[in-house]
Amino acid sequence: MPLSASSQLDRLCVVLVSTRNPLNIGAAARAMINFGFSRLRVVNPYQLAFREARSAVGAANVLRTAQQFPSLAEAVADCQLVIGTTAARNRHLRQPLRALPEAARSIRGRLGSSRVALLFGPEKRGLSNEDLSHCDWLLRIPTSAEHGSMNLGQAVAVCLYDLVRTRDIQPRRERIEPASAGEVEAMTRRLFEALRLSGYVNPQSAASAEAKLRRMVHRLRIPASDAETWFGIFRQILWKVGKANQS
Amino acid sequence: MPLSASSQLDRLCVVLVSTRNPLNIGAAARAMINFGFSRLRVVNPYQLAFREARSAVGAANVLRTAQQFPSLAEAVADCQLVIGTTAARNRHLRQPLRALPEAARSIRGRLGSSRVALLFGPEKRGLSNEDLSHCDWLLRIPTSAEHGSMNLGQAVAVCLYDLVRTRDIQPRRERIEPASAGEVEAMTRRLFEALRLSGYVNPQSAASAEAKLRRMVHRLRIPASDAETWFGIFRQILWKVGKANQS
Repeated sequence: MPLSASSQLDRLCVVLVSTRNPLNIGAAARAMINFGFSRLRVVNPYQLAFREARSAVGAANVLRTAQQFPSLAEAVADCQLVIGTTAARNRHLRQPLRALPEAARSIRGRLGSSRVALLFGPEKRGLSNEDLSHCDWLLRIPTSAEHGSMNLGQAVAVCLYDLVRTRDIQPRRERIEPASAGEVEAMTRRLFEALRLSGYVNPQSAASAEAKLRRMVHRLRIPASDAETWFGIFRQILWKVGKANQS
Repeated sequence: MPLSASSQLDRLCVVLVSTRNPLNIGAAARAMINFGFSRLRVVNPYQLAFREARSAVGAANVLRTAQQFPSLAEAVADCQLVIGTTAARNRHLRQPLRALPEAARSIRGRLGSSRVALLFGPEKRGLSNEDLSHCDWLLRIPTSAEHGSMNLGQAVAVCLYDLVRTRDIQPRRERIEPASAGEVEAMTRRLFEALRLSGYVNPQSAASAEAKLRRMVHRLRIPASDAETWFGIFRQILWKVGKANQS
């Protein structure tokens, strides 16, 4: 199901828990705007960070309308599905863990009718076990095993991207229409003549050289839309080379 | 074959063009580490930003081994596929544009055998038309129409995530291995010079004509096995045209 109706996007709440760096709050908000989401909730943020992010020049509507909650329980109280993000290192997880591609499919399916909270933990240590206990299941971005911990703003961007990535997949672009054989031949003849006049072609093996050049020009698969320009280029070069031989 | 073998991940070069903010260079490097990539290249960075990112506490191996290049052409010279990222706003794009999900499938298919460059432009204005002319095709993250421009570090994270999110996609081997960007650039320069000497290029619009020609040569997808011969052809023509101008 494509996730395109704004009513569906509006059912996703991005919840930042105890974020410390105002740049990260701003980056999360920017990613939300880029991908069409609007509901930002912050839990127990460092007040200075939140105030700074909110008052930044060009702070978006997403930040101005962000809701603040003193506890995670209150922040997700109206949500039917709560998902925690985790790098899943050194931790015995007690909930189902899904990789982002599968998680995104599942979330898309739920946004048709449910309000969904997607939680991101503080920069250094991520969501605590207490935070995770509020979640229905957990989401992991498939990062490398040794370097799993992502920057917060980047993690938000990657998750939101995967939620909307199938929205506007365009049909495969039309194959480039190649020039006709007649056009290829006209170019080959002029190029070969220019090479002959330039002394590139051994007269003894001119016929096989011309065949070789023709195969090479065919292999270029010149686009039909460029054929006229290439023809003009080869004609101009031939004219100039011919002049060189007259002088 | 899943995209997990480090040999495949090592074939992707993340190329940051004229990045201004050291935090963004650091964020790009962190996303690379999270998703298992290691080759970072920077083009013409603000020296202070690059030095600061590199010397940051805990700066990763990715940053310490990052390569610096004075021009984009040099940064992508050994790559067989060059892809530019763009928000695709207010711009008439002259190359094929693919949404990230489709683009990632295509890139995964190519990493089995080719070196691929993925370019990210400067923070404010993104890649220039000249930068884009070095690309085989362009990639767009499917952001919302009104708020398309992403934070650089987040854009890098989202692109790299989609490259590794599915680990069971079969790479599609290219039937014909294309020439590297460096070979394409060497040919483009000689052909352009020959055209300039032939009076084909209006001196007033030489820069845009060169970018247009570069895009056309990229579209040819010259096979690697023909690259040396084509280079010889363009060099010979340039020599002859130069002689015409001396006489």
